[in-house]
This record gives sequence, C-alpha cells and structure tokens, in this order.
Amino acid sequence: MSDPESATIPEPSTRPPPVSHRGRSAAPVANSNSADDEVLEFEPFGLMPRGPPPLAEFLDVWDVNMLRRSDEVNKQRHHTHLYASDSLIVRRGQEFQVKITFNRAYKPDDDKFAVEFVIGSSPQFSKGTYMPVFPGGDRQGTWTGRVLDSADNVVTMGVTPAPDCIVGKYSMFVAVVTPYGIRRTRREESRNLYVLFNPWVSGDAVFLEDEAERKECILEEDGIIYHGSFDDVSERLWNYGQFDYGVLDACLYIMDRSEMPITNRGDAIKVARKASAMMNSRDDDGVLVGNWSGDYTYGVSPTSWTGSTEILLNYSGSRMPVCYAQCWVYAAVFNTFLRCLGIPSRVVTNFYSAHDNDGNLKTDIILDEVGRVDRARTRDSIWNYHCWNECFMTRPDLPAGFGGWQAVDATPQETSDGMYRCGPASVQAIKHGQICYPFDAAFVFAEVNSDVVFYSRSRDGTLTPVRVNTSHVGRTMLTKAAGSRDSRDITDHYKFPEGSEEERTVLEKAEEFGCNRESVVLAEADVVLELPPLEVRVGEDFDLTLQLSNRSEKPRVINGYVSGTVVYYTGVTSSEFLFKTPRMTLDPMQTKKEVVPILYKDYQKHLVEQSNLHFIVTGKVKETGQIVTAMRVVALRNPEIIVQVSGLARVSEEMMVLLEFTNPFSFSLEDVYVRMEGPGVMLPKKKLYSLITAGQSITWTERFTPRRAGPTTLIASLDCAALRQVYGQAQLTIQP
Amino acid sequence: MSDPESATIPEPSTRPPPVSHRGRSAAPVANSNSADDEVLEFEPFGLMPRGPPPLAEFLDVWDVNMLRRSDEVNKQRHHTHLYASDSLIVRRGQEFQVKITFNRAYKPDDDKFAVEFVIGSSPQFSKGTYMPVFPGGDRQGTWTGRVLDSADNVVTMGVTPAPDCIVGKYSMFVAVVTPYGIRRTRREESRNLYVLFNPWVSGDAVFLEDEAERKECILEEDGIIYHGSFDDVSERLWNYGQFDYGVLDACLYIMDRSEMPITNRGDAIKVARKASAMMNSRDDDGVLVGNWSGDYTYGVSPTSWTGSTEILLNYSGSRMPVCYAQCWVYAAVFNTFLRCLGIPSRVVTNFYSAHDNDGNLKTDIILDEVGRVDRARTRDSIWNYHCWNECFMTRPDLPAGFGGWQAVDATPQETSDGMYRCGPASVQAIKHGQICYPFDAAFVFAEVNSDVVFYSRSRDGTLTPVRVNTSHVGRTMLTKAAGSRDSRDITDHYKFPEGSEEERTVLEKAEEFGCNRESVVLAEADVVLELPPLEVRVGEDFDLTLQLSNRSEKPRVINGYVSGTVVYYTGVTSSEFLFKTPRMTLDPMQTKKEVVPILYKDYQKHLVEQSNLHFIVTGKVKETGQIVTAMRVVALRNPEIIVQVSGLARVSEEMMVLLEFTNPFSFSLEDVYVRMEGPGVMLPKKKLYSLITAGQSITWTERFTPRRAGPTTLIASLDCAALRQVYGQAQLTIQP
Repeated sequence: MSDPESATIPEPSTRPPPVSHRGRSAAPVANSNSADDEVLEFEPFGLMPRGPPPLAEFLDVWDVNMLRRSDEVNKQRHHTHLYASDSLIVRRGQEFQVKITFNRAYKPDDDKFAVEFVIGSSPQFSKGTYMPVFPGGDRQGTWTGRVLDSADNVVTMGVTPAPDCIVGKYSMFVAVVTPYGIRRTRREESRNLYVLFNPWVSGDAVFLEDEAERKECILEEDGIIYHGSFDDVSERLWNYGQFDYGVLDACLYIMDRSEMPITNRGDAIKVARKASAMMNSRDDDGVLVGNWSGDYTYGVSPTSWTGSTEILLNYSGSRMPVCYAQCWVYAAVFNTFLRCLGIPSRVVTNFYSAHDNDGNLKTDIILDEVGRVDRARTRDSIWNYHCWNECFMTRPDLPAGFGGWQAVDATPQETSDGMYRCGPASVQAIKHGQICYPFDAAFVFAEVNSDVVFYSRSRDGTLTPVRVNTSHVGRTMLTKAAGSRDSRDITDHYKFPEGSEEERTVLEKAEEFGCNRESVVLAEADVVLELPPLEVRVGEDFDLTLQLSNRSEKPRVINGYVSGTVVYYTGVTSSEFLFKTPRMTLDPMQTKKEVVPILYKDYQKHLVEQSNLHFIVTGKVKETGQIVTAMRVVALRNPEIIVQVSGLARVSEEMMVLLEFTNPFSFSLEDVYVRMEGPGVMLPKKKLYSLITAGQSITWTERFTPRRAGPTTLIASLDCAALRQVYGQAQLTIQP
Repeated sequence: MSDPESATIPEPSTRPPPVSHRGRSAAPVANSNSADDEVLEFEPFGLMPRGPPPLAEFLDVWDVNMLRRSDEVNKQRHHTHLYASDSLIVRRGQEFQVKITFNRAYKPDDDKFAVEFVIGSSPQFSKGTYMPVFPGGDRQGTWTGRVLDSADNVVTMGVTPAPDCIVGKYSMFVAVVTPYGIRRTRREESRNLYVLFNPWVSGDAVFLEDEAERKECILEEDGIIYHGSFDDVSERLWNYGQFDYGVLDACLYIMDRSEMPITNRGDAIKVARKASAMMNSRDDDGVLVGNWSGDYTYGVSPTSWTGSTEILLNYSGSRMPVCYAQCWVYAAVFNTFLRCLGIPSRVVTNFYSAHDNDGNLKTDIILDEVGRVDRARTRDSIWNYHCWNECFMTRPDLPAGFGGWQAVDATPQETSDGMYRCGPASVQAIKHGQICYPFDAAFVFAEVNSDVVFYSRSRDGTLTPVRVNTSHVGRTMLTKAAGSRDSRDITDHYKFPEGSEEERTVLEKAEEFGCNRESVVLAEADVVLELPPLEVRVGEDFDLTLQLSNRSEKPRVINGYVSGTVVYYTGVTSSEFLFKTPRMTLDPMQTKKEVVPILYKDYQKHLVEQSNLHFIVTGKVKETGQIVTAMRVVALRNPEIIVQVSGLARVSEEMMVLLEFTNPFSFSLEDVYVRMEGPGVMLPKKKLYSLITAGQSITWTERFTPRRAGPTTLIASLDCAALRQVYGQAQLTIQP
C-alpha cells in the first residue's frame, strides 16, 4: 500500500558528489604518463600443464642495456646528449639501439621475442600505447625493429619509433614467447624510454629543414627576449634551461596535470594548444600566476626571474601554480616546454600590441569636446609590447599552405574563445587575413593589425571618430636571430608593408570574416604633430619635443594638451604626473618645435616597475577644427649589475663570478633580491639584501663549475619594490 | 648596513591570493547583465550658475509607458507575446514603441531629448553598451528613433535597435538636454527592456526565412526527442518551457554566470558556443551534472525529467548545478536556452553515434584468436543514440557557404578541444568534409562517419583488422518536423548517400585533414550474417534470429559466438547474460535461419535504466578463416502511464487530468516519482509513491487551468530505481 504524498526531491545544497565514468565509457581515459597498470610478467595461453612450466629450455633475458649514457651512440645521434638525465631520451622516427643479453645465443628461426614499449594506463596496440617491436621479418608494427648484431648471447637491436608516435615516457619490456605463454621482464626504471618530437626527421610533423633554425629553436638554452619600445629596444636575458635535471619530467607532469589524453600527445598541434592553456594558472591550475598589479608580496616579481628552471621545478615539486608572471615569463617558460619536448620554438615580441577583447580591429581613445583625452572613458589599452611564442609544425588540419611557424600565446588574455590560451594560429594565415582557421588566428590578427581610433565625445554621449591611426599597433615584431645574439625583424611574417595593395586586401579579407573596423574616411590633416624618440635614464631630467608642421598655405593656431602619465607595460595608466596646455601658432608651411621640460622630481614618485612614461599630445586646430594627436612611450633606463667572471673557462674546472651593484639613488633600497644563473654553467641561485643605502655598493662572489663546452651567459637580476628590472650579464665561452 | 644572507623566497604552500586586474587593464571586463554603475541623474556641463538650476522652463518627464502588455502592439509584432513576463521583450532590428509624457507639449525645434538604453557595467557608446536614441533628425546612432505621434504632452516614439546589438536586459532612461547639463529619469524596473535575437528580420545573423521552421524553432514549446534505435524509434516528449515565468532571466543568468563579456552577447556564434559549455557543469559549474552510472540517489534521474523549466529555475535559484542529465536532457535544456533568446534551434538524434576520443574515424572492437569479442580489451563504444542541437545562423567567420544549420552539443564529451563543449560546427561543412573550420567540425564528423573496425588479436598482442563496417555509425539522424508531430529524417544534411561517389570524396577530404581511417581493403566475404530487427516489451521472452547466407558454391561451416549483454545507451556494457557457441553448417548458396531463444528470467536481473539489450554475433568460417559479424540493439518497450483529460478545453477554464499506472511486474516498485507538466497548461508537478506492489494500480488526479490557446500536450513520467523511462501523454487543443 502506498499513499501519494508531496515529493521532496533532494535539492543539491552543496556541490554534488563526483560522478563515475560508469555507464558512460568502458574505462576512464588514459591521461597520465605514469603507467598505473601492472603489465603481466606471465601471460598464459589457454591450456597449461600442471606444475611450473619448464621454462629452462626457452630464451631467458639476463640483462637489458639501453645505451643511455650521454656519450653513447643513442643520445649523440638523437641530439639529446645535453639533457641532464640518466634515462634514454630519443626522438621519434629515428633508430636507436638496445643490447639484450640472453641466457644463450638467439636463434632467429626458433626463438620468438619482442621488445615492448608501453605508455599510460590500459595500454592498447590500436591506440598506440602498446608497441611491440619484433627483431625482424614480416611482422612489423608501426614501430619497426631489426637485429643489428648478434654475438654470443648478446643481441643488439635497432628500434625505430613511428614518426607520429606518442611523446612521453615509455616503460620497456622484453617478451619471450613460449608454448605456454608469454614471459616478460619486470618493469625497471633504468629501462624507461623518453620519446621526443624530432625536427631532424622529415616524417615528423615538426620537421624543420634549416639547421641553424633547428639548433636555435631546439638546442639553445641561452635566450634573449626583447622589450621596451620599437625604436629603443631593450634585451632581457633568459636561461631556458630545457636540459636541466628534472625539467623534462616537469614538462611531462604539466601534460599529466592537464589530464590530456595520452593518445593526443603525439600531435604537436594539440600539445602546443594544451600547453598554451597550462602555462597559466587560470582555468586549470597551470604553471604560472599572472600579476600585473605591482604588488608581488606573495611571490617573485615577474622582472626578477632569470630563467625557467626554478619555475618548472617549483611547479612540479609543489604541484601549485608559481607566483608571478607577466607576458615574457609565460612566453619564456612555454619556450622551455616546447624546446624540451622537441617542438622548435622561439619567443617573439610585438611592439604596441592591441589588447582587443571585443575581437574587432580597433582600440578606442576618447577625447572630450575640446580635444583632451578623457581618461575615465578610455578603457582599451595597447600594450607597449607583448611576447608570445612561435612553434614550427605542419598543419594537416588546415588546407595546404598554413604549416610552418604558428603563433601560440600562454599569457591569459581575456577572451580567447572563453579559455585562457591562444593558438596555434598559422602565421601565414594571419599575414593573408585567412583568420577563419583555428586556433585564434583572428585574435592574433587583431593584436598586430588594430587601428587606434580617436573619438570626440559630445555632450550627449555620442562619439564621433576624429582620427584613425592605422600604423601604431603591431609596429615591429622581433625575435632572436638563429645562431647569433642579434635581433631579427620578422614583421613581414605577419604583415604586408604598411600602405601596400596587399595590406589593404588582407584587411578587407579580415573584415569579411567579421572583424569590424572604423570605416570613416577622414580628411587628410594639414597640420602634423610628431614626438621624436628619446633615450632617458631613470633619475634624469629631459625635454619632450613636440614637432609641428603646417602643410597649409595659411597660418594655424593649435590649442594643445600634453599629458604625461606613468604606465604599466600593458599600457594601463598608473597616474598622471604632467598636464600642460600649450598654445602654438604656426606660419604657413612652417615646421616648429615646442619643448616641454620633464623633471625627475615630477615623475619619480609615480614610477611603477617597468618605468615607462607615456605621453599623449592632442590638440585642436582653431581654424579647421581638425584634431591632431601623437603618442610616445619612453622606457627609462635602469642602472645595471656588473658581472665579472674569472678562472679557466673549461668544462669541470671551478670558476668565480663577481656581481657588483651600486645604489645610484638618494634613497635606500629594502628587501633586495639578487638572482643569478647561466645555461650549462650555473643553476639558479638567489640572495636577499635587506638594505642597500643610498650610494652603497654590494658585491656577491660565487663559485661555479661549467658542465659543458660552448658559448654561454651568466645572467643576473636585482629586484625590490622600489626598483625592478635591473639586470647584468657576462658572456663566456667554455672550452671542452 | 646590510649583510647578504641566504634568501628564503616565500614558497606558495596554499592557493595564491587572487590577483586584481590592476596594471593589466583599465577596468574589469563587463561580464554581467546587471548594471552595477549608477547612471547619473544630472550630468552637469562645465559652468554652473549658483543655486539650483532653473529647470522649470525645460522639458520634464512625467511618465514613460513601455507598452509592455502581451496584448499591446510591441509584444504582438515582435512575436514575444507568449513570454510570461511583465517587462517589455522585443527582437532586435525591428521597431518598437514607447510613450513619453512630458510636462508640456514637445517642441521639436527647441527641445532636445534622447531615450537611452544601457546594459552592463561601464556602459560605453563605442562598445554598444550605451545607446542613445534621438527622436529624429541627422543625429542617429546605431539604434534609430523617430516620433510616431505627438499629441498634447505625449510623444510616441519608435525605436529600432541595431540588428546586431547586444542581446540581454537593458535599463531605459529619458535624458533631456538643458543649458546646464543633462537631466535623466531614474532607473525603474518597469522600464527594463529585454532585447532578443530576431529570426524575422533579414539583417539579423539568425534570420530564417521559412515561416514554418521559424515558428517551430522559436515559438514551439512542445517537443519530441527521438531515441531507441534507428529501425525502432521511440519518442520522448519534452516541455521546453521557454516562455515560462523566470526562464528568460535564468537564461541571462547562465551567461552572467559564465562571465561572458557583455560585448560578445550580440554574436550568435559566441552565445551558442559559450552556452554549449555552460549547459554542463564541467569546467564552469554550468547547469547540469552528467551521470550515466545508474545511481541517481543525490538528484533526479535523467529519464524522470519532463521539461526544462524546473531545471533552469532550480539552477538560477540555487546557483548550483542540477543533478542529473544525460544527452537528451542537455540537448533539451540547451534548446530552451536558444529558443528563449531567439536563436532558431532544434534537437537532433543521431542513431549509432561514435564516441571517438582519439579524433580518428574508427571505433575498435577486439576479437580474440577464435573470433570472440574480447570485452576486456574493447574500450571504444558506440552510443545507441546521441542527441545534440542544431541552431540556425550565418557564419561570417567562415568562407561563404557554411551558414545555416550549425551543430552544437552540450553533452560533456571527453575531448572537444580540451573543454566540455562542442560547436557551432557548420552542418554543410560536415557534409562536405570541410572539417578544418571551427568549431569542432571534425568531432561531429567522426560521430556520424566513423568506421567500426573488428580486429583479431594475436597471442603476442598485435592486432589485425578483419572486418570494417562503414555503414553502422551515423545510421540515421532524426528531428521533429516543423509544424507537425512527425519525425523528419535529416541524414542527408550530414552525409551523402552510403556508397556514392560524393561520400567517398568527402571521406578522402576528411582524411587529408588528419582523420585517420583503417585503410585495409578486405576481401568481400562469401558468408553474410544478419540480425533482423525486433520489437520486445520488458518482461517478454523472445527469439533472436541469426540469418546466414552462403554466397559461395561450396558448403560452409561457421563456428559462431552469440553474446547478449545489457548495455547503457552509451553502448557501454553493463553485464553479459547470454553466451552461446552455435556451430552452423550451410549448403552451397543456402540461406538459413538459426534461432536463439532469449528468456526474460535471464536478462531481467541485469537490466539497467534504458533497458537495451545488445547482441554481437561473431564467427569464423572454418573453410576460409573469414570472420563474420553482426550487431543488434534491442530497445525494450516499457509499460506506459495512461493520461486522461476532462473538462472544457478553453483558456482560463479549470480542467482535470487523471494519471493511471499499473505495476505489471511480479515485484514491488519503491520510491516511485511521478512527474507531469504541459506547455502553456501546467507548470511542473511531482508526486512520490513510496510503494507500488506487484499488479497494483495508482491514480493521480490534478486540476489545471490552460493559460493560452492552441494544441498542446500533457506529459507524464514515472521513475524509480527498478523501472525508468516510463512515460504517458495526452494531446489537447485549447480553445481561445
């Protein structure tokens, strides 16, 4: 019996309990590089005789030698000898060797054995996670094998992983077939095999033919990242450290942490995309926490890092996001990840990068009725510079022609398809305005192609466009040149020349795909305003020069507004320290300079970490109502650390380095962190100086022992709340 | 003075503190539909006279009438009269009217006023979040206005929102310009304006010309969702309830909860994509928690829901994901969301849907050496059916030709670009194998085009393909026909006919884009095995017929394996209840039937919620070694609820409904939930029966009052742990 009664369905008042995969899939997706399943040591065939099987007469494995030392054939031929690792590391699509010692000589006609490689849980042949390799004959899987040598009891076997196989850490077994079943060696750490992408092999999706590029983008640890402004470029040195002990495991941990299915890890496109999401902590507790606020109390300030090693080891060790990063830190650590796994990559810097969260092609600057910037209403910003990565790969998912360099960006920007990641976007597709192809080509296109639109705001709130600057954004793109310490201008990879027919076509193409631009055509101005570049050290007074040209036959009067602000490198305004309203008169066809003196005492107390001063000059021509505008970012020069090296520069010989820094200011520096490291010569070291008084010098002497030969750099940074972005370096060449 | 000392950088041991937007952007992104900023009631112009300004002589607003009743002109013309809402709801790109009463007659030449619409925080004209509308003249923004009538003190103004404007809830103000500043009305709830997508206007991206489709895909609340198997289709009724009170606000809440920037909310592509992520609770605490496990203790079982209203109101009320959903629940609630906002949409069912997490085009079934299914090693599954949505829109982000219906899927599948969402993917692009275009076209392509590959596994673990079935997956796609209760086969929207030249070309095209297929060409088999379809009620014994044809001139012996399992609708095996090994002999050219009796007592205790039996028959032909295979899903018929309606079917007249159900089983049903609702006639109601003994009947009588005229359905469901998926319905037509 039952009485109907009013139901109370349990309402979820707290987070619902986790739901299992049961009923939905046969097994959870393998998404960790650590093999959870025990591989059977003995796999019986149907019928079994009583008692232990008489195995003595069959082949038995005594020893397996992976030839994993750096000076042995495998690592030398696979360009993996630089990794500080005890395990064998090879690149796919290329043969490596293993030596197997049996209990007796191997008889090819009678004996059946296979070398097996297994990755992840639930290994399966059809998923590419269980790879049996046979010593010869017809029965070859996607990984091929052959006997290179068979002497006494020792067989030297050559194994060639498929050029599209999964990248990661495999376990290795030797399996011998007996009439009763398969006997298998135990799992052993020393037999683990790391398989990487291989730019040296044409069958690999990341094949890169140019040897200089390949060396730079895979093997180079010593990095230069550009910043500042396009006509006054600064360098930031970086130790990518992709070969440092533990870094490869940390990179694999990142993929495990992302729960990326094992079967996707042979696909360079998917690896790069997933990693662009995982480099930042948004969404997925990835590697780095972004912080642009100036307050880095709970971590390391972005300008203080000198390399990736400390960040990656900290992340894989603590399993917590590392604090803090800004764009170049994301790009640098991402570069380490990609180079470490064998995907050719480099860091590029885009000067004046539009941060365009509407996905259209314009950045708005709002002027009030008299032509002055309305800071309360100007919300868009243009980053003085922005760093991202390029990685090299084919794009089988796109029509032909879009392979090659791909832009990927790990800095969490607001609206890259709802998740904090970006790319890979084909650089060719961006150049040609083919922004309909995945991933995020339209977003990168806007970063390099946006127009800056000055609007005049009327009393009732409507906006009228008064000036469109089409050449400000994406002014120059730089990367480190392959095999040299020079910069390389790659602007022409992203854009056709300003004003060319092709450029116009590309922008029209992009508009077809829904990127709106401000389409007003404005009369050509007859008064032109320019602000010439400036080089200024922190602490200096200097002159800002306004250069005005009257190109008309009539006199002109300009009511100008000069606004000087301190800005973050993201273009966001911190505070205004200067505001002047010069009135300038010009004779017909006259060119004239107006000088505005800028005093240290005025801007000093407003400075934020990267010490950028931003000047916007606007004005209204009295006679014509025309609005003139000009912008200039002045990246102030900081003092430097002096780095001096002494001793015999030879592998395994102890050397000395001396760091010196003098506080040039009239105030004390407190809680000063100094960091130092060098690719192949010194792991990251740091020191805290609690106080450096005005004019005081500090010195730091450190011993180090080079681990390998070749040119390298010692990189030092100094950082405190009052002074950031202080660097020093010493070049040295280590003899073998 | 300072002594250098060994540094201890604070290591993050707990989650780092949240970082502000400071330094990175000028203001946080507006991503909520609720206006946070107070709009100024008086906005002064520069100079102000002392004392209160003499406003009396200027225009003053006494009253604003939004003409928001369902029977007034706005809702009637905008097809929004069905919404149970007190606010004005209009569609963009189409004029609506407001009446403004001033303190005196409006003088067009002297008076300046504007109607202003504001959405989200930091409203800005250039972002489309602040829209001033002028009563006429040259000064028109993207929203245009005109005076339709001016009589005494009352001005009737026509306002036409831009056809690409932001969709959501706007605040409305009337601003009057005085010489001293702008005077504005206060914010008032009753003046809120909801703006929706508009399929009736050709300038809107969701314009749909076909009136029958448009009515079905926007205005129809009464839904039919297909399930079962392609040759034995069942219907599930659903009340989409997009016009129910609170549902529109719940849909806007979903976008707010996703923190989708306001400025993206006019873009149908972005709205559909974002919502496909937000319908499921993965990643982002979206609407529904998926559960396929059979254990629904902490929520409502997926088969128990009869409509979307309860789910959406529960989500927006509790702000917690709602338990539980399977694919049709996701698709149905997503359908409500899309129709409610004005994006034409429908639910489609794909029979035999490949769940292909490798992104390749094959589903693997592993057989052992004798030809028997190796269940431990068969990890892929084919869903008996899978439901997703199609929505209609242009695709300006893609080359021409890919607009129209777009597949979107809210069910959380494993690997749709690393996030649980899918689409919009152009159905045209899928049909033509142009799977390089966003979003997720390759994924949907695989769902309808995968091959089923049978592998034979040898003793040493290698797999050899022995049979490829290219027509099993994506067998039929159905949706409800517009304006009728029939189904419509839309398979030809997704695929060219099986075996056609075009089909082959499309598959080759897809392969070029990296979708791998098993390329072995296998000899045509001379023995063919088929399993004819079956209709079975739960509780019946029945015969499974194996139909064998020998097409060769020689006799054949087949060693068969008949495996009967109970499966979830996801194709995942719950348990095997039958295993037989018939040996069958065939004369030359003979066709023969072999009958396997299936007893209720054998499968009964294994049944899971959707009562699907899955038979796989495999066999090896003794003479040729050929492998024959056949598969058949039998969707068991459940008992039904009888629904009877009585009373005068007229708007606002009370009616009665009687539900009757008899437990046909020999066991008791415990904790039985019965649910009932009907579009426009009854909001969701539920009842709990703690026990229904064997053979016992229950009845439930309920009164209801139809809210509007037209044909509709009363939908009932019954659900308990021992018996799920029991439905009943009554059609009725309400007179005005």
